[in-house]
Amino acid sequence: MTVIESDSEGKPLTGYTIRQAWVASENGYDAVDVRIENGRITAIAPQLDPVGTVVDGRDKLLLPGFVNAHTHSSELWQRGMIPPYPLELWLAKLYDFTPADAEQVYLSAIGTAVETLLSGGTTVVDHLTIMPGQELETIGAAVKGYREAGIRAFVGPLIQDQSLPSSIPSGGQPSAYEPYARTTQETLDLMAEAIAQFHRPDEGIYIMMAPTGPQLCSDELFAGCNELSDRHALCRHAHLLESKAQQLLAEEQYGCTAVEYLKRLDFLSPRTSLAHCVWLNESDTQLLAVTKSTVVHNPLSNLRLGSGIAPILKYRQAGVNVAIGCDGSASNDSQDLLEAIKIGSILHNVTDFEYRNWISPRQAVKMAALGGATGLGMQDEIGSLEVGKQADLVLYDLTSLSLLPRTDPIGLLVLGRPVQVVSSAWVAGRQVIADGNLTTVDVNHLRQELFARSQWEFDHDSPTLEALETRYRRVMGLGE
Amino acid sequence: MTVIESDSEGKPLTGYTIRQAWVASENGYDAVDVRIENGRITAIAPQLDPVGTVVDGRDKLLLPGFVNAHTHSSELWQRGMIPPYPLELWLAKLYDFTPADAEQVYLSAIGTAVETLLSGGTTVVDHLTIMPGQELETIGAAVKGYREAGIRAFVGPLIQDQSLPSSIPSGGQPSAYEPYARTTQETLDLMAEAIAQFHRPDEGIYIMMAPTGPQLCSDELFAGCNELSDRHALCRHAHLLESKAQQLLAEEQYGCTAVEYLKRLDFLSPRTSLAHCVWLNESDTQLLAVTKSTVVHNPLSNLRLGSGIAPILKYRQAGVNVAIGCDGSASNDSQDLLEAIKIGSILHNVTDFEYRNWISPRQAVKMAALGGATGLGMQDEIGSLEVGKQADLVLYDLTSLSLLPRTDPIGLLVLGRPVQVVSSAWVAGRQVIADGNLTTVDVNHLRQELFARSQWEFDHDSPTLEALETRYRRVMGLGE
Repeated sequence: MTVIESDSEGKPLTGYTIRQAWVASENGYDAVDVRIENGRITAIAPQLDPVGTVVDGRDKLLLPGFVNAHTHSSELWQRGMIPPYPLELWLAKLYDFTPADAEQVYLSAIGTAVETLLSGGTTVVDHLTIMPGQELETIGAAVKGYREAGIRAFVGPLIQDQSLPSSIPSGGQPSAYEPYARTTQETLDLMAEAIAQFHRPDEGIYIMMAPTGPQLCSDELFAGCNELSDRHALCRHAHLLESKAQQLLAEEQYGCTAVEYLKRLDFLSPRTSLAHCVWLNESDTQLLAVTKSTVVHNPLSNLRLGSGIAPILKYRQAGVNVAIGCDGSASNDSQDLLEAIKIGSILHNVTDFEYRNWISPRQAVKMAALGGATGLGMQDEIGSLEVGKQADLVLYDLTSLSLLPRTDPIGLLVLGRPVQVVSSAWVAGRQVIADGNLTTVDVNHLRQELFARSQWEFDHDSPTLEALETRYRRVMGLGE
Repeated sequence: MTVIESDSEGKPLTGYTIRQAWVASENGYDAVDVRIENGRITAIAPQLDPVGTVVDGRDKLLLPGFVNAHTHSSELWQRGMIPPYPLELWLAKLYDFTPADAEQVYLSAIGTAVETLLSGGTTVVDHLTIMPGQELETIGAAVKGYREAGIRAFVGPLIQDQSLPSSIPSGGQPSAYEPYARTTQETLDLMAEAIAQFHRPDEGIYIMMAPTGPQLCSDELFAGCNELSDRHALCRHAHLLESKAQQLLAEEQYGCTAVEYLKRLDFLSPRTSLAHCVWLNESDTQLLAVTKSTVVHNPLSNLRLGSGIAPILKYRQAGVNVAIGCDGSASNDSQDLLEAIKIGSILHNVTDFEYRNWISPRQAVKMAALGGATGLGMQDEIGSLEVGKQADLVLYDLTSLSLLPRTDPIGLLVLGRPVQVVSSAWVAGRQVIADGNLTTVDVNHLRQELFARSQWEFDHDSPTLEALETRYRRVMGLGE
């Protein structure tokens, strides 16, 4: 890198000029210079006078940063550990072994940020599991991790006011459950405090209102979330109809679909993003379109948990905005966005013989970047290469073996299996990856910490799972 | 690495001792020493006296090498290039732009070998497109590439005696096609010559009889393949029922399913592996089980081309052996076996609510290693860690960020998104990867060659596609 530190009058220059990078044009690619100043894209042209640090963009592809639009960072501690189980039983396993201290939460936030950045993401949406009794410490630890990594982070503390067993349909045999550990009002007070302490949009840290999902939250909790969301202009986020069991539960509990229920609760909005959306019907889809809500597609998690294939082609045809997420590392088990984008686009080719509806690599990139931004109400700020937008940008090295021989850069990136191809990345104009390495995080140190704080461990017996499995099998018609 | 070059009497030592690597035990993992001598595994024990080169196996996982059980190496030149199309139209695009010289074939064979090795494969099955008029040169070039890379290679020249349009159902409107470029007898003579020149099992190079598939091959060609396969003890390989259109074609042409047709032709055998097998019915499945034929599952290609989800859980329940392949790089577009193993196992969770049928990470590893070996009649030689078997082994570095924190090593490897985790690999006792790098191939030089011999190119108009699309849409009921 050549650094031009001052202009001809000796005035110090800041910012970056990326020279001669490939950017997508309507039908092909153009080689352009891109200037970044004060956190924003200030010029894009075939040739620009360089200012600030000059970055060689030759044989590189420049794209807007992707949004990892749904994850649970602390699941990093359980990645690879839980055997193949459907969502409801997998959750039982997950609940048995969650992180117990804020240092772990901090490290898994950094780990999630690093993997997201190294696979083209510049924004992460963390539906964050919060430790009982250490709620604000948990949120603070994750926020600290994201600040250090330099990623744009939407942190939605995972709140609920009903206990886990109530998320499995009763199958006509209702039973009483232990009340949830925190009352509804305590949870809302906690969120008000979290907003006051941590919500700093100007610094790239956003608190979201993120009830777990209708299966674990009361009407009162949703109403409180709406109220705080409106008062502070916060995004809303929840799980929605991830599994067949949740569809059955909605029928049992609301007498309508879960989407109709959320509509009735007034939770749907242009700033609402809903993770999974596997089991929606056509009128549900229309409700999402009309309310301008966003579907977050988590293809790998939906496969791993056997949740199903979300009808993404139908959502797109109905005009519903779609974003892409990795989901937590215990259900994927990776935060590689390029993998999620690949599978999240090609997976749907088996759901429709009409290949003209299939998602092209360029459409997939748009879904992951602008689709993600739109789901966060950020479509005017990030998600595309436009002068005036914040500089959340990623430069991919097209000379990596995994992207050769040369053909169509975006085709290679999306349909291939890129290995360590992110050369540079910027979040709001701050360079967080340079020459393929994080500028913000000592990755070797991170590895040592993750290694030291874990041990080889294999499948455990799970008392929670044992308690739930009989009911689950009965309700799902699976026999003994 | 410590190299102990001679024993206490000064006699030179060869071979390797891998010390204290994790290997899978019945319910967990054991740390063991593994000795490799004269190309074979000669000892596995908690503690061995070191001989030969000592390799530190601590914090590493040792697995048998996987088999990339179906690919087409020269498609590397078209990776990332072909937009989303179903098989029949994708093929039209592919045929418009195939490699034209032997040097390209040599380079794409090396590239395929390198990506396979770096993702845990030690054997590749190359269903090799052969250039008209340069058939033996093509085969020779691929064989040269595989020899240099040091991978075990099964090369099945892709032979047929009918031209491409005949592979699309006529829909009751049959038309005449141009005859194929080579007669059936010329093709069989060519194969006899290829066997004489290149089939060298002792050197890890095997020629296979690999008719493209029933949709493009006459009964006479199959009979000739059977004859050569029996005479030289060669494996048999073909595409089978990859697409819905092929299922329709079989009904039109044979009056029975394509599997019944192959059975009638006597092509099915314990040494027969069949790529794709997406559109089989229950009695077809029984035929594969009875004949001990192998299904090669190519999950990513089947998604990308919209071919469908092969019913792999049903095959496993019926006792059919299943192997895993990447398929060619124009339909995947990667030769990363770990990706194929991940998707090829979790994909099926959405096809059966009975999670007890789902494929565990350990079962996935077995499918890719022993399943692959079995499909090649090599189950007594490779595919598992057993004393006496050939040393086709892979050692994975469990301290990679992508495999941390520590939990279950095989769970992390299969369900995660490992990045450059292969630390060492051996093929028949020859170390082809050491400290994460190929010992046989200069990867930087390979990159330069692939770069220099290609150019950025985007979607082309395809005359072949235009000629076929109208018929394809009519037959598939897709309208104009």
